Formats: sequence, C-alpha cells, structure tokens
Amino acid sequence: MKLDLAPTEDAEGRLAALAVLAQQTRDLADAVALTDVAEDELTAITADLATLTERLSAARRQTPQPFEVAPDGTLRHLGNAVVGTCNPHALPLTVELDTDGGVRSELTFRPLHEGPPGSVHGGVSAMILDHLLGQGAAAAGSAGMTGTLTLRYLRPAPYNHPLVGTARMSRTEGRKTWVDGRIALQDGTPLVEATGLFITPSKWVDAVRGAG
Amino acid sequence: MKLDLAPTEDAEGRLAALAVLAQQTRDLADAVALTDVAEDELTAITADLATLTERLSAARRQTPQPFEVAPDGTLRHLGNAVVGTCNPHALPLTVELDTDGGVRSELTFRPLHEGPPGSVHGGVSAMILDHLLGQGAAAAGSAGMTGTLTLRYLRPAPYNHPLVGTARMSRTEGRKTWVDGRIALQDGTPLVEATGLFITPSKWVDAVRGAG
Repeated sequence: MKLDLAPTEDAEGRLAALAVLAQQTRDLADAVALTDVAEDELTAITADLATLTERLSAARRQTPQPFEVAPDGTLRHLGNAVVGTCNPHALPLTVELDTDGGVRSELTFRPLHEGPPGSVHGGVSAMILDHLLGQGAAAAGSAGMTGTLTLRYLRPAPYNHPLVGTARMSRTEGRKTWVDGRIALQDGTPLVEATGLFITPSKWVDAVRGAG
Repeated sequence: MKLDLAPTEDAEGRLAALAVLAQQTRDLADAVALTDVAEDELTAITADLATLTERLSAARRQTPQPFEVAPDGTLRHLGNAVVGTCNPHALPLTVELDTDGGVRSELTFRPLHEGPPGSVHGGVSAMILDHLLGQGAAAAGSAGMTGTLTLRYLRPAPYNHPLVGTARMSRTEGRKTWVDGRIALQDGTPLVEATGLFITPSKWVDAVRGAG
C-alpha cells in the first residue's frame, strides 16, 4: 500500500515546493519593481537569473498546472493567473465562502500593482473582480464563464493596505447568473463595484445531468 | 557640459539595465509556471532566488519607477503594472497611435495568463482593456481616470498567439469621454469588446488652463 501511495505523496510534495518557488518569484518581482541598486549589480543579477531560468526550463510543460481534483476532493487550479499558488503572476487571491451564501476575500495589493501614482491600477482591480464574481456564481451553484462584466470605480484603491473583496449572486435565469461584488476598505468604504453576467456552458449542464 | 549631462546618461543607462532585468524576471516567472523539474531542484533554485532578492533589496524605493517626463519629452511610467518596462508584472503592453485617431497594440499573452484551460484569464483581458481604453481617451486629448468599464466576452482568447488591441474615443462631453475598444484575432475576429467612461480630474483641467 505504501508503494501505491508514494507517487501521489511525492507529487503533492513537489507541488508544495513549486508554490514556495512561485512565492519567492513574487518577492523577487516586487524587489525588481522597487530596487535602487546600481547598474552593474542589476546586470550581474540578470545574468544569475538567466541561469536559474535555464535550469527551470530543463523540463518544461506546455501549459501551467491544470484545473484538477485535489487529493482532498476539492477543485483547484494551481496554475491560474489570479488564484494559482504555483503561478507567480497570481496575487494569489484566496476566496472563502461567506456566511451570506456569497464569497469573501481578504487581499492586499503590492506596489508592483501600481497604476495612478500611489494607487492600484484599475485594470488590476478589474482582473481580481472578474475572478471573484466568477467564484460568487460558482458559490451559488452556477459556475460559468464571464459573459459581461461592468466595473464602477468610486475611489482609488491603495496598495500595501488590507482590503476586502466580496461577491454574491443576485439573480439566476436558466444558464445565466448575475453577480454583484466589490473591493472595499476594511471599514466597508467601497472602492470598486462590479456586476457580472456569467453563463454556464451547455456542455457543463449536460455533464451535471449525466452525473445526476 | 559633459559633467552636467553625465548623471542623466547614467540614470538612463541604469533604467535600461533595469528593463532588461524586468524582462528576465518575466522569463523566469514563465519558466516557474511551466517547469517540470524535480522537487530538490525547485528547492535549490528557490534558495538562489532568495539570495538575489536580498541583493536587489539592498537599496529599495517605496514606490515603483514614477510617472515622469522622459529625456525625449514624452511621458512614461516605467513602473506601471500593465505597460511599465521596468515592472515584471507588466505584459508589457505597448500602445501606438492608430491612423484613425485611436490607439493600437500588438500583443501576445503567455501561458502564465491562463484562466480557463488553454485560454487567457478573462480578468487579464479586462486588465489590458482598461489600460488600452484609457490610452484611447488620452489619444483623443481627454486623458482621465476610469469611471466605468464594461467588458463583453465573445470568444476565449488564446495565449501564445499574436492578437490586436484597439481603442478609440466615441464621444466626449465636458470632462467625460467614452471610448470603445477590443481585443481581436489578427484577422479581425473580436474576442473581447469593451466600452469605458473616462473622467478627466478637474485639477488636470485647471493645470492645462494654467499652462495655456
């Protein structure tokens, strides 16, 4: 039995190490965005990074870590651009079920996410809200693809500052689900509001019917 | 005269080296997202990255490279999260004036930008379109902050595939400017469409009046 389980344990251990590497890569990217060291040091570090990039590319996948069922039975997408813990591009956003049937996320943007001086890029807020609203649809049992998304920018979003993202289904009609959400200060002051229409692909509906 | 110019030349040389480092950091992040090397190698590389991160942090700014006037007189924001060549998070998006008075961008997403399996995350497309439409407003002489942004997702956007982004002002009224844009295949097939309302802050208008 131990032999049968070993490969899975190994795979999970490797994915944990990959998540640590992805976080270190985020820390590196933050340091690049803020570094004030001299030119010769920048050039020396670039050469070292090129070597590490080559080592990582010695064995290379065609696509990021897949959308899959984790050993604990939950769905995960470790390679996702917004939530994937194994993807350095991801914040990563962590989303939890809220008590009201919606979803909630505690998030902190970084200087790397700057748009207007001192504030988070509106596009970065949009990126986060697209994902969060999609999770809001999924939490209501209506997982789908984004059909339309409307964002209303009320106040600049600060970085290096704890914020709260929320999203909740407002209405559903066949394969269409409407979700409202926002990013706010911890005291509830809204910064960016969003409304999204999510559409469940008909093949997913058929799959669920087939499974039922 | 040479002495007076020297510091600026040095500063520009350093920024060029920083842009090369930022690109190498993007290549590294891509390699992390796709690597298939073994766990012990991942851990060894993480340790080396931690050392490089420390070296970069020996002198550290509080904010990314600023929005500023470049030596050639153009405006630039090298630290911007979407277009900043010195920011590893940035695509970086490059935006050019189009012949019709709008803006145009040739762009290629990477596997790192994955959302649905094999496709670009809808949030990443939203991030790019927010910036592109803002540039469309600026190209029409109405630079402003995003007020509202609506995205319509028509087809999945592929990565590793050359795409075209466009944006153009459709209407302006006082400090409000409406812009339409999209991301499309090179043959013109639209993937994501967007409409944005951009608002010029009154202090910017006053500044221009003051300058005039």
